[in-house]
Amino acid sequence: MSHFFDPTSLATFDAAKMAKQDLARGEHLFLGLNSLEPGQSQGIHTHDGADKFYLVVSGKARITVGAVTEVLSSGQLAWCAAGVPHGIAEALERTVVMVGMAPGPTAK
Amino acid sequence: MSHFFDPTSLATFDAAKMAKQDLARGEHLFLGLNSLEPGQSQGIHTHDGADKFYLVVSGKARITVGAVTEVLSSGQLAWCAAGVPHGIAEALERTVVMVGMAPGPTAK
Repeated sequence: MSHFFDPTSLATFDAAKMAKQDLARGEHLFLGLNSLEPGQSQGIHTHDGADKFYLVVSGKARITVGAVTEVLSSGQLAWCAAGVPHGIAEALERTVVMVGMAPGPTAK
Repeated sequence: MSHFFDPTSLATFDAAKMAKQDLARGEHLFLGLNSLEPGQSQGIHTHDGADKFYLVVSGKARITVGAVTEVLSSGQLAWCAAGVPHGIAEALERTVVMVGMAPGPTAK
């Protein structure tokens, strides 16, 4: 596996729903991409045993963490500590979000 | 603690050496910023029990992972699995790098 990635250029989209891709899976940390066409979303959910972040790498989306929803654009970060509900309420344009989660989704 | 961050606008620099800042510390995951003036660096080092990444959020730097050094610019990512030596060989301009590490540096 390569050590170096260009997340924006790797993103693939699905006209039916938000697309998910793996970037890297370590023993302790998972990195991936969520790629959304305008209007697509990721429902509110919670990881009780894992910390997570969203980093918008291109585009613009409304992102929810806890009780707060904000519009995030390229370069902005949302921190979702373990147990805090979070989701992508709506992509306002074609949007690529890098996600990181520790431990990763298959490490349980 | 806020859930939302704009890493580039939060960065602070130190004329003497690379500056380090915390963004978020969870039970499982740490996020921070490394901010470098042109010519500054972070020496090669290894975290035996933690996975880490560098994401360049602004600027341009030569980043080393394992035996490979590449020039990364804004939006590009370096993955440093546990046990793999890594460092920032040289900032080629004023550069802000988001770092993530799981588990975090104080969680041992």
